[in-house]
Amino acid sequence: MSNPDTVAVVLAGGRGTRLYPASSPETPKQFRAVGGERSLLERTVARAERFADEVVVLTRPAYADRVRGLVDAEVFVEPEPKDTGPALVYAAHRLRGRAETLVCLPSDHHVGDDAAFATAAERAAATARETGGLVTMGVEPTRPATGYGYLKPGEARGEGVNRVEAFVEKPDAETAARYREAGYRWNAGIFAWTPAALLRACEGTPLEPLVDALDAGDPEPFAACEAVSVDYGVMEDAEDVYLVAVSSAWDDLGTWDALARVLDADESGTVVDGNALPVDAEGCVLATDEGSHVAAVGVSDLVVAAYEGRVLVVPKAESQRVREVWDAVYGEE
Amino acid sequence: MSNPDTVAVVLAGGRGTRLYPASSPETPKQFRAVGGERSLLERTVARAERFADEVVVLTRPAYADRVRGLVDAEVFVEPEPKDTGPALVYAAHRLRGRAETLVCLPSDHHVGDDAAFATAAERAAATARETGGLVTMGVEPTRPATGYGYLKPGEARGEGVNRVEAFVEKPDAETAARYREAGYRWNAGIFAWTPAALLRACEGTPLEPLVDALDAGDPEPFAACEAVSVDYGVMEDAEDVYLVAVSSAWDDLGTWDALARVLDADESGTVVDGNALPVDAEGCVLATDEGSHVAAVGVSDLVVAAYEGRVLVVPKAESQRVREVWDAVYGEE
Repeated sequence: MSNPDTVAVVLAGGRGTRLYPASSPETPKQFRAVGGERSLLERTVARAERFADEVVVLTRPAYADRVRGLVDAEVFVEPEPKDTGPALVYAAHRLRGRAETLVCLPSDHHVGDDAAFATAAERAAATARETGGLVTMGVEPTRPATGYGYLKPGEARGEGVNRVEAFVEKPDAETAARYREAGYRWNAGIFAWTPAALLRACEGTPLEPLVDALDAGDPEPFAACEAVSVDYGVMEDAEDVYLVAVSSAWDDLGTWDALARVLDADESGTVVDGNALPVDAEGCVLATDEGSHVAAVGVSDLVVAAYEGRVLVVPKAESQRVREVWDAVYGEE
Repeated sequence: MSNPDTVAVVLAGGRGTRLYPASSPETPKQFRAVGGERSLLERTVARAERFADEVVVLTRPAYADRVRGLVDAEVFVEPEPKDTGPALVYAAHRLRGRAETLVCLPSDHHVGDDAAFATAAERAAATARETGGLVTMGVEPTRPATGYGYLKPGEARGEGVNRVEAFVEKPDAETAARYREAGYRWNAGIFAWTPAALLRACEGTPLEPLVDALDAGDPEPFAACEAVSVDYGVMEDAEDVYLVAVSSAWDDLGTWDALARVLDADESGTVVDGNALPVDAEGCVLATDEGSHVAAVGVSDLVVAAYEGRVLVVPKAESQRVREVWDAVYGEE
């Protein structure tokens, strides 16, 4: 067969606003070495190369050159940034007839065990091929997180594979604890499908006009659709949706408090990602780029992040509020 | 008379360690626009030009070019940095026979009212000329500060002029409150004398060998003396010491909490010196250079300072501890 079995589609068009100032409009977090030695994008592509025959990076026009400079992968440029739904439909349409199965994954996640992740990704691709359905990868919750959507598993299909009985919105803490006890999984936003399966699943959804525009060769296909996530726009109402379990530690690095979970702390519970001097600093997250340095003296449970002259200080528990800073500094999108 | 009546000697050789990261070994605070539009050194020289016929800036070798680039004043380079005693003796020796009176002032102070300061400086110079004694300027305490030495006023000599009955070391808070009630003044570290008066007062002090070495034309005169402040080395045991009152607001900007006293706060009690975005930040000091920006969200009573990629976060009340950071980053002197 001349088509590669599995193409990994890496989503690298996001802005990562809540990771300001590691994220800026020019340099979002996927281009930064957050929580590791190489950029999140490079680590994601290396992870994808373990299970995929080819890797395609999907990004917005402004970031395309940046991506090409960092990784050796084909780059697809989204006509305009419009959330994951249009982006993934666009990628599937371009790869139809070229790839058998797609595994689609964000470029800004932390994964603790790349080998375990690759095993799950291979299982997801096989499930997508065998069932012709849509596959989403689910992570076993390690805490009652309120920042993630959850997947309710249904009928088992094989080892580590179930039907998805329901997609559940981000819960409050109490509900999250109940979900966790009931065996729900975090919706990691990592998907597998054949190109045809995704395009077919768009029928009757807000993404159908986009598929039609792409079929018609419309030069501005994204004008035909609204910004919508693929979960909300397509998967929640689709018929054949499967959950493949990922056993690796995982975090979406959505907010700064995530670093406290994925990095090793010193004896005061402070984690350092970059150049920092904690002096009686307890339970803090100190993060910098190569050219910056943070000294934190006598403070507790704070995030201090410094990138290219921009500094953020916020209590770890209020990491979600960083979006307010982004909006004030750069304007709302 | 061909000699200028009054030469201002501006002390610009210090390192300002507790104002890290506005201070670094390469760029101490006097070269920064802390609490104002122009650098502290420029503001000090402008202030001195109000009352002095000439201004001389005294600095260490490493900073001499920097000083020349910033201000239009003669530069004296101290052979080596050895506290205020040797520096001021060196300046007096060089200006002997050239200036009638010297007014010696640090380059890193905040002064609220330059006109009132000039009046006091002229009075100090006149007192030095008329008495042939040593004059120190005293600031009326606005709080029971524990970070300053105090002057106990003695017999009155004229308006705003008293003999100094005693120099008092930095007190604890309770003692400071008592001093304040008793009319003591802060020792601002600003002095006036004739060159001959200072050199004569060194007799029998640790600075006498330096005067002898200078008289002898020794090429390394500072090798003959230890590092000692002029207060401790000479003035505390001198006979004719006078206190001239300064009525202006004054602060030595020794530590970051000082900015909260000398700048206007927003409605949450936060002061900003530079580029900052306070979001529910109460009672904070946010300070940056031109190329930096600080966002502080949901925090209280913190100092956040960012200069040239270096960031400091410390509770305002622990501003004194910044010295620990300096020592850890640059090594102890």
